[in-house]
Amino acid sequence: MDLTFDGDHVLGGTEARERFYDSRGYGSPRDGGVALAPVEAAHLCFRGDIASVDDSRPGGADTLDFEALLGSAAVSEVDFFVYKELRDRGFYLSPVRPDPEQTTDDDNLVEFVVYPRGKGPWDDEIAYRVAAVSERATVDAAMLRDLAREAQRGADDTHTATDNPTAVLAVVDEESEVTYLEVDEPTITGSTYHEFPAVTARLLSDRVLVPDPPESLHERAFYGQRLDRDDDPVQLSLVEAASLAGDDLLTLDGAVSGDGDQQIRDRGRAVEGDRFDRRLRVYSALRTAGVVPKTGFKFGADFRTYADVESVDNLGHSEFLVRVLPGDHTFVPRDLSLDVRLAHGVRKRMVFALTDEDDITWLSLERLTP
Amino acid sequence: MDLTFDGDHVLGGTEARERFYDSRGYGSPRDGGVALAPVEAAHLCFRGDIASVDDSRPGGADTLDFEALLGSAAVSEVDFFVYKELRDRGFYLSPVRPDPEQTTDDDNLVEFVVYPRGKGPWDDEIAYRVAAVSERATVDAAMLRDLAREAQRGADDTHTATDNPTAVLAVVDEESEVTYLEVDEPTITGSTYHEFPAVTARLLSDRVLVPDPPESLHERAFYGQRLDRDDDPVQLSLVEAASLAGDDLLTLDGAVSGDGDQQIRDRGRAVEGDRFDRRLRVYSALRTAGVVPKTGFKFGADFRTYADVESVDNLGHSEFLVRVLPGDHTFVPRDLSLDVRLAHGVRKRMVFALTDEDDITWLSLERLTP
Repeated sequence: MDLTFDGDHVLGGTEARERFYDSRGYGSPRDGGVALAPVEAAHLCFRGDIASVDDSRPGGADTLDFEALLGSAAVSEVDFFVYKELRDRGFYLSPVRPDPEQTTDDDNLVEFVVYPRGKGPWDDEIAYRVAAVSERATVDAAMLRDLAREAQRGADDTHTATDNPTAVLAVVDEESEVTYLEVDEPTITGSTYHEFPAVTARLLSDRVLVPDPPESLHERAFYGQRLDRDDDPVQLSLVEAASLAGDDLLTLDGAVSGDGDQQIRDRGRAVEGDRFDRRLRVYSALRTAGVVPKTGFKFGADFRTYADVESVDNLGHSEFLVRVLPGDHTFVPRDLSLDVRLAHGVRKRMVFALTDEDDITWLSLERLTP
Repeated sequence: MDLTFDGDHVLGGTEARERFYDSRGYGSPRDGGVALAPVEAAHLCFRGDIASVDDSRPGGADTLDFEALLGSAAVSEVDFFVYKELRDRGFYLSPVRPDPEQTTDDDNLVEFVVYPRGKGPWDDEIAYRVAAVSERATVDAAMLRDLAREAQRGADDTHTATDNPTAVLAVVDEESEVTYLEVDEPTITGSTYHEFPAVTARLLSDRVLVPDPPESLHERAFYGQRLDRDDDPVQLSLVEAASLAGDDLLTLDGAVSGDGDQQIRDRGRAVEGDRFDRRLRVYSALRTAGVVPKTGFKFGADFRTYADVESVDNLGHSEFLVRVLPGDHTFVPRDLSLDVRLAHGVRKRMVFALTDEDDITWLSLERLTP
């Protein structure tokens, strides 16, 4: 069977089309024959379905077998391992290049369109859109956001899925194992809104003390902690205090009106730098959404969140772990793996709050087994 | 009862000594009376045992009550919350300053000497040496190492414990909760030594392929992974391949003798930078100790380790998660919390391999409930 690599695709005739495309979903039809992506040809070589392909590139080798294809620039190891892993799981899939007009990503990241089990490129459904990266790659927050949004648009040029496909980041580690992370834009909403009178407080070096708090400040709205017993002062974190002061619900003892707000923010910046402003923005956005953020320190995160707090005596399980990051943050896959694994272990969902000057993008990542 | 703050200690007479030191382990005897550290006086004020102390400092306030003490520079909030938390757990404890000759730390970090329950400063045993830090502090690797070593020396000037006390890092988060992390220098040793003939391999862009491996390379010594089935080539990570090449157990196809070693290291540095050399040093040290390191990617770590591998079909549980860091690394407590929590959730012990030019310091951290 003649299969020729032209530097872009591996091209075959009618027989190759029937054997590889029609019956097993490799490549796409072209001129009655088939055009295979190099990673698809490498997989056919790996399986022993073809021994090698002819290399028609100027100055190319005569033939390319599996090892030569995998060792060549035409096939990235990362793409091969993801392609193989998904085939091993019983999926048909096609490599595509993301539409450059729809993404901010310009480094020609390959994505895979993965069809539901039992379906193929000739059908109309997509189960997953998978971006494949090495554990040594860096992953821009914007890339993850684009991946999630592109999946939500659902369709691509040739497939008009009824259900939106799932956006997936597939990370190939140094031992070639693949970890799949589902990327989504979560809806963050709760019902925690409790009224209480404004309080007077005292600023300490890294927290704020409310000597005489109304009961609902802590017991219902879940701000701060009692120093010890039920009738003790409530201590607030700086971010809690700054959020309350911004809503005119807290004034500092001895500060002129409005000045307390500024003093708390100044203290926050002194102990935490720019991070304080980002965390305050995210904290306030969560409160506005009716969600209570509490410290996520024990989980290595910024916040854990409670959606529907009626009373602190009956809190229920916290749902999200939130990590606050600048909007232009670049992730290292290992850190994503760490966060997602930990969140899973404590039955929470990992959410990244990507904070720009006037906007927060929420992205959730979860381990996925396709 | 007269209690006077002189800027350094709160001093009281015989009655105060009897009430606070003799019966409850606060302070230390001085001239028949008692000298309390400010944090101890703040705790007595907080409990209501004393209402306030006189301020004898030039230009000081007349009296200092609990809020004034906590708001003053004499008492750090971090120290107070750790002191209170350990008292709440039923311990007597004394603040000390680490011996500057024994540590590289010169920023006057306060440590607490914590006595076993039922014992006090007049006894001869120490249960814990606790360094208290804020979640916003940075923690030098050297500080953690010194803390572990000082605890292992066991004694201090006045206590000659028979058992070594446990070294503890106590982190106070922004909501004033305390997380205790036990710091130790673990013994890392295993029994995995299997012989096999040297192999010939092919360098790909981010891994190495061994087309015709002896069975014990993977199945017993647990290097690499089979590409797929039992008789397939073995793929090695770059760090595995570099370690084998350094031990003359791997040569690259077509490379002159010794040159393959260099080629693999060069490739490792190209894809990973300086980190590659550190990871290779740690990888090789673990192998020398009879321990098998495999990727820790799914746990967000560098390696997970197996101490006693007879056969990959019967691996047993991996014991450690290893994170490789430069010797002068500065930790953020939140990251420590994340790593330790994750390791605990997967029943492993978190180990940091602090890598200097010619030396590796191993530190393990584990969550502790005193």
